[in-house]
Amino acid sequence: MKIVLLGSGNVATHLARALRSAGHHIVEVYSPTYAHAALLAGEVGATAVSDIAKINPTAALYLFSLKDDALPGVIGKMPHTEGVWAHTAGSLPMDLFSSRSHAYGVIYPLQTFSKRRTLPLADIPLFIEGSNPATLLLLEELALSISPKVYPLSGEKRAALHLAAVFACNFVNHLYALSAAIVNNEEMPFEILLPLIGETAAKVGEMAPGEAQTGPAVRHDEKVMQQHLAQISNPQMREIYLLLSKSIQSL
Amino acid sequence: MKIVLLGSGNVATHLARALRSAGHHIVEVYSPTYAHAALLAGEVGATAVSDIAKINPTAALYLFSLKDDALPGVIGKMPHTEGVWAHTAGSLPMDLFSSRSHAYGVIYPLQTFSKRRTLPLADIPLFIEGSNPATLLLLEELALSISPKVYPLSGEKRAALHLAAVFACNFVNHLYALSAAIVNNEEMPFEILLPLIGETAAKVGEMAPGEAQTGPAVRHDEKVMQQHLAQISNPQMREIYLLLSKSIQSL
Repeated sequence: MKIVLLGSGNVATHLARALRSAGHHIVEVYSPTYAHAALLAGEVGATAVSDIAKINPTAALYLFSLKDDALPGVIGKMPHTEGVWAHTAGSLPMDLFSSRSHAYGVIYPLQTFSKRRTLPLADIPLFIEGSNPATLLLLEELALSISPKVYPLSGEKRAALHLAAVFACNFVNHLYALSAAIVNNEEMPFEILLPLIGETAAKVGEMAPGEAQTGPAVRHDEKVMQQHLAQISNPQMREIYLLLSKSIQSL
Repeated sequence: MKIVLLGSGNVATHLARALRSAGHHIVEVYSPTYAHAALLAGEVGATAVSDIAKINPTAALYLFSLKDDALPGVIGKMPHTEGVWAHTAGSLPMDLFSSRSHAYGVIYPLQTFSKRRTLPLADIPLFIEGSNPATLLLLEELALSISPKVYPLSGEKRAALHLAAVFACNFVNHLYALSAAIVNNEEMPFEILLPLIGETAAKVGEMAPGEAQTGPAVRHDEKVMQQHLAQISNPQMREIYLLLSKSIQSL
């Protein structure tokens, strides 16, 4: 499929690599910053574009993978084109496109992307939505070409999934960062926590998180909790300890 | 090694299985509740004991794997024995034993244990401390017989490690539980989050958590954050969203 990619961030980069590997032809990569467009375009054999008015109007798909804040502005400046317009944002409705395109939708990859990490494609579930059956079918075919896990999903459910992902990924990663600060402060390497982190994640593949819960809060071990609070000097970290412990006990 | 195990909970169960597999002889399992002692004793070929005064005094090691709250009481009621006394608690000092034993220490397994899950032994780092060099050596030999990852560690550093584990495991698991509640509320299965959860954990094996951070908070994407807050009806969950987002932005 002939694709124009708008965006050059983490999600755009991973999708571009996956689409290219699946044999699609990425004709152009657009970014308002030419150097960013050029870097990704070079990697996937596309042409870099920084003037949106000059975008190739003959692609089958225009894939918008931009910061949520930037998306409406870029859509507004798009020239008229044939082809399907789709964005990759979890929290934005597909109707963003309705006044500008007759065939539009969403391909939302539920994953955390960093440019310098390569992911197995099978590990990227894709959630799709289309403004009409033919568009949904086109997006489904495209999605299935890069991942075996493709699910149609309404915008409302996608927004809930995006919120859940913030808890299960972004907030979880931040707790890893706080645990790293604690061990580093005692001159221990973060690596010693990796088997625990791996098992904590693996466990919820076998049992529900509620059933997997361990630790002083769920045991109501007040003595240990008081000792932990006394060990934490950062007030914000202490607040997090108290709030999450209370939340564990109330679930 | 001839071992008496005091305790029958998650940690006691996993250690008993591992010690038995490594060829050690668990002669007795003590629990104040006879049925609990009997269940684990039956599994590892030991005798169940619920009267602490009748514990076998000839073992080489007395391994106390009890709730932190219960440990001092059980130590106080122990009969005099030869052999090393050791506990498995992250947050308690080894000196708990000092008035009752001449050779004592700690074997702290840094892992999350649930009875119905079997763990590869290599995934259990063990942190040891001993009241004298001979005791430390005995505990090191024992630890190495069940895990390749054995590290001597002071009580102070062990307490920090235990606190870090609460953030990296117990609190992380609770965030999984909150994300499960969000998707279940929209009639989606928790399983769709598993690739994201797995990758989030795997990523910090390759880069520091600070570097791996993604999501609206670190991007300062206020619009998405406001939308997320509007989606959350539970006040405590909203408080967690706000506090963790603020903490991400201040790190």
